[in-house]
Amino acid sequence: MSEHLFLRACRRETVERTPIWMMRQAGRYLPAYRAVRAKASFLELCRNPALATEVTLQPIDEFGFDASILFSDILITLPPMGIDVIFPDAGPKIPTPVRTSEAIADVKVFDPELELPYVMEAIKQIKTGLAGRVPLIGFAGAPLTMLTYIVEGGGSKDYPHTKKLLYGAPKDAHALLDKIAHNCAAFLEAQVRAGADCVQLFDSWGGIVSPGDFREYPLRYAKQVIQLLRSSKTFSERPVPIIYFVNGCAPYLDDYASSGADVLGVDWRVGIDEVRRRVGDGVALQGNLDPGALFASPAEIRTRVADILARAGTRGHIFNLGHGVLPETNPEHVRAMVTAVKELSARS
Amino acid sequence: MSEHLFLRACRRETVERTPIWMMRQAGRYLPAYRAVRAKASFLELCRNPALATEVTLQPIDEFGFDASILFSDILITLPPMGIDVIFPDAGPKIPTPVRTSEAIADVKVFDPELELPYVMEAIKQIKTGLAGRVPLIGFAGAPLTMLTYIVEGGGSKDYPHTKKLLYGAPKDAHALLDKIAHNCAAFLEAQVRAGADCVQLFDSWGGIVSPGDFREYPLRYAKQVIQLLRSSKTFSERPVPIIYFVNGCAPYLDDYASSGADVLGVDWRVGIDEVRRRVGDGVALQGNLDPGALFASPAEIRTRVADILARAGTRGHIFNLGHGVLPETNPEHVRAMVTAVKELSARS
Repeated sequence: MSEHLFLRACRRETVERTPIWMMRQAGRYLPAYRAVRAKASFLELCRNPALATEVTLQPIDEFGFDASILFSDILITLPPMGIDVIFPDAGPKIPTPVRTSEAIADVKVFDPELELPYVMEAIKQIKTGLAGRVPLIGFAGAPLTMLTYIVEGGGSKDYPHTKKLLYGAPKDAHALLDKIAHNCAAFLEAQVRAGADCVQLFDSWGGIVSPGDFREYPLRYAKQVIQLLRSSKTFSERPVPIIYFVNGCAPYLDDYASSGADVLGVDWRVGIDEVRRRVGDGVALQGNLDPGALFASPAEIRTRVADILARAGTRGHIFNLGHGVLPETNPEHVRAMVTAVKELSARS
Repeated sequence: MSEHLFLRACRRETVERTPIWMMRQAGRYLPAYRAVRAKASFLELCRNPALATEVTLQPIDEFGFDASILFSDILITLPPMGIDVIFPDAGPKIPTPVRTSEAIADVKVFDPELELPYVMEAIKQIKTGLAGRVPLIGFAGAPLTMLTYIVEGGGSKDYPHTKKLLYGAPKDAHALLDKIAHNCAAFLEAQVRAGADCVQLFDSWGGIVSPGDFREYPLRYAKQVIQLLRSSKTFSERPVPIIYFVNGCAPYLDDYASSGADVLGVDWRVGIDEVRRRVGDGVALQGNLDPGALFASPAEIRTRVADILARAGTRGHIFNLGHGVLPETNPEHVRAMVTAVKELSARS
């Protein structure tokens, strides 16, 4: 498995073509996924290893992606932290947001194998189902992104409570981020022990701050997670690649590579060639087609794929969307993207 | 009035200190504004020149900002374009979004002096009220930003309908953007005729696309608006400065200066020194404190103001927030920011 195309690209080794997977590839754009979802709630899917396995494998079977990613949600770690969360269709809600020193003191550091056994069981079943075809990516929300949900009580447009905490009560913010970072590292480590071949740290809202605050908050705690992972017993035995993805990374390119990750995720708003120039050659890059570009015609999708492949070069590139695939996407356009990447990146 | 500090800074002339104003400075964070809003709806405020004048002047009287900005909303141009809009507290809604060639063909090009006379009347009353104290900025939504509202039917997280139109039906997208650009230019020209001393083009959602699509859509039509303005009779007689603001400009810095604007707005996610390096010395820059930084202590606000002043330098800088002030902001913290800018930027 360590010789799989995707894992070799993560290590910047020479590859016969550019591998591709897609954030949220097991999701609502896929009729087979919607059929399973018609029978079970989102949370039931996350908590039922057999169902999680079924939907994780669907896009591999359907499109031939080069990596699978555990079907789950970054917020499933909230209940074991002592924080309730619900998943209505309009987006996750945390009925009692954490906004005070007292509430932060009550946030729990937990044992993922005890508290989230169904995740580890799903990983084992997925690995069995994959039978070595492609690697399995485990994941977690990065500390700053987790903080925004916990503090805002859900999604947000302007993140006022987050910013009140970060800038108005920085000691509290650091205390909360430190706890989340420990939980995040322990959770990812447990996923690797269970069989994950790679882990991705999602900083979906790492891009809401100034460059100085990026160093002080999202980057600092992503680094902490990555250092905890690298120094763990699990990684000393099985050092899988670590991907760090910041949505809206363009303002932070001078610092991004210092995260310590093997692979940096690149959203679609920035040229992947500019990212390469600014982060240097020490890391692989993953990205970066606009998820909305899948609304274009298959011919236009192919043109855009070719442009990204040309900008990214042949070494250390994993093709992906710049963020999760949109639910309204036509699956045949996904297929056009996968075909274009495989054909256009093949080295003769 | 052409010698006012703010206007001289827009032209990159030497100034005795850095001028400051604040996006959404007439707004909900201000108790005096909320008192007026308790008596009238948002739309009534926009449409009543006396009330619009009252709230426009409030922050000038209260904090001594160096420029005023017309109290209005970018979406008030929708009804004369034949598109209904409502303004509930949760954010604007367009009950019948424009998504087809037929609907785009029906969008009207209108005469702003006939259709929006209350805006021109408000400008005249504000100018009288200001009595030359500070300049008045007029504004409009930039074409791509207006398109997102019209097409999505309101705000959006992922802009799926916008991207379906831009990438799936580019001819329709260009037709709609061209109409909006003509309306936008005519509206800004009318505001200048009525007395506005400067105009700002708000591309709040210009930052949702790839660099190539930025050139093809938001930048292209902002340029068109700016060229229409510069070649207008009004501007040949009274060439006021033009500000172009893209929220999330960091990925586009190599192209941003080509907009043709005198001043480029800079959001808070990027270092204003990096922006200066990348856009060159031909334009002034406006920004770029994180609106959320006003939740910090007055001492921390002063530190952050000093940092931005140092990065921006003394020539061609207008201090502003990186986006609109948040409604939850403490007015005394706004005062701390204004005081810090005035004191720390004073040239001896």
